[in-house]
Amino acid sequence: MSVHPFDEAVALTRSGEDRWQGRTSPAYANMVGPFGGVTAAQALKAVLNHPALLGEPVSLTVNFAAAVADGTFELSARPVRTNRSTQHWVVDMQQNGDTVLTATVFTAVRRDTWKAVEHAMPEVPQPSDVAAAGGPKRVEWVSRYEMRFVEGAFPSAWDAQDHGTSRSRLWLRDNPPRPLDFASVAALSDVFFPRIWRRRASPVPIGTVSMTVYFHAGREQLAQAGAGYLLGQAQAQAFHDGYFDQTAQLWTEAGHLLATTHQVVYYKE
Amino acid sequence: MSVHPFDEAVALTRSGEDRWQGRTSPAYANMVGPFGGVTAAQALKAVLNHPALLGEPVSLTVNFAAAVADGTFELSARPVRTNRSTQHWVVDMQQNGDTVLTATVFTAVRRDTWKAVEHAMPEVPQPSDVAAAGGPKRVEWVSRYEMRFVEGAFPSAWDAQDHGTSRSRLWLRDNPPRPLDFASVAALSDVFFPRIWRRRASPVPIGTVSMTVYFHAGREQLAQAGAGYLLGQAQAQAFHDGYFDQTAQLWTEAGHLLATTHQVVYYKE
Repeated sequence: MSVHPFDEAVALTRSGEDRWQGRTSPAYANMVGPFGGVTAAQALKAVLNHPALLGEPVSLTVNFAAAVADGTFELSARPVRTNRSTQHWVVDMQQNGDTVLTATVFTAVRRDTWKAVEHAMPEVPQPSDVAAAGGPKRVEWVSRYEMRFVEGAFPSAWDAQDHGTSRSRLWLRDNPPRPLDFASVAALSDVFFPRIWRRRASPVPIGTVSMTVYFHAGREQLAQAGAGYLLGQAQAQAFHDGYFDQTAQLWTEAGHLLATTHQVVYYKE
Repeated sequence: MSVHPFDEAVALTRSGEDRWQGRTSPAYANMVGPFGGVTAAQALKAVLNHPALLGEPVSLTVNFAAAVADGTFELSARPVRTNRSTQHWVVDMQQNGDTVLTATVFTAVRRDTWKAVEHAMPEVPQPSDVAAAGGPKRVEWVSRYEMRFVEGAFPSAWDAQDHGTSRSRLWLRDNPPRPLDFASVAALSDVFFPRIWRRRASPVPIGTVSMTVYFHAGREQLAQAGAGYLLGQAQAQAFHDGYFDQTAQLWTEAGHLLATTHQVVYYKE
């Protein structure tokens, strides 16, 4: 049995009290450096691996401070506040002594409560009725995900028209399929291609500067979802002077909203 | 001319290289400790006041690690990465040597680009046609904001019914009116009462643990908005085992989307 490329990518080696070492994965290479979703997952892993960890992740914010270079990196993850059932973490990633990423993580021991999905999953065809996105892949990491676009696929032509909406909906999962965990949900939160490419169908330079993920699931819900498809929806709310936001949801096939996520992205026009 | 209570609340005194001292404001007192929106604004102020600041805030994430006690606090704000036109900050707030808040801030020099508001302001009556929320105020800070609810006002009775939606829409501004700036937009992002109180009409214990604000405006747009009303909309997407999210928008009367914001909130049921 071979190791899944995602597990290989997020493997860290402990190098000190609050310190880990990792390396970028060619399997998740982006145009320049690695896919940001996996970088976010590596930052989260430093917390998940920490012996002092209390509970499970509820929120994660990752700030991409500089391009991550291919190769090794150092992660520091410090629990700065531990309460009775909650914990706050500060994380940073360095290469050659320079900060390339900062992150904060909030973890908690959850308790069973009244629950509800208020943002209901839209009605869409089943995964088996939607074609998998094919064709040549621009960058390596895209091949690590199976994507079946229901709406707003990657532009087949750069017609530079204003398409009036930036919304995409797609079924997605790891390729090959892999049981979900917190790290893979963090990575899946960044799978959506930049909304300005969808809205304007123009391949302008972009870069995510900050991403936040809220987890609405514990280990049990993730285990139930298994290696199944997630429905992802992503849409921008505003484009303004070089930065736009995108807000996204990830539902299981059964309609459980596993995660909601937001990011702000640089664009050059 | 007297100082506006908000300016008094967010005033900081420099106490070292990257350090400031401030104090909680009785004018913005909450049930226990201060209103979190003003705490977030104070954290942002430590960056805005910093002599090394490059550009204007694009994103802010604040993690409320512990209840802030009434009285003084120490803020540290460090620029951990400065690029050509962007900057990443790590902030923490301490009381008696304990971390009570962590934050990250991303600032940038913006450039004029193609822009669009994709999440359009909903059609609602004008502020003058909507009654100001009256009656006794539960906590002091609520009196520092004028709120005119179009939909989803603070429950007049705790009927403990599932109202099926958590959405609120309201016109809001500082009271007395005050020209908008980045700090006041950060505080306004936290004005929405907890969505579970709206959805369930039951006053369960709650507490925001993390909030993110994306600014879609520069100084010029804020100056144009002046001391006018903002339309605020807030809604939860998921409630799960002790934590729910709420996502919100703040538009100017002219329909410019100034800020989008998200938070995750503890609830006990």
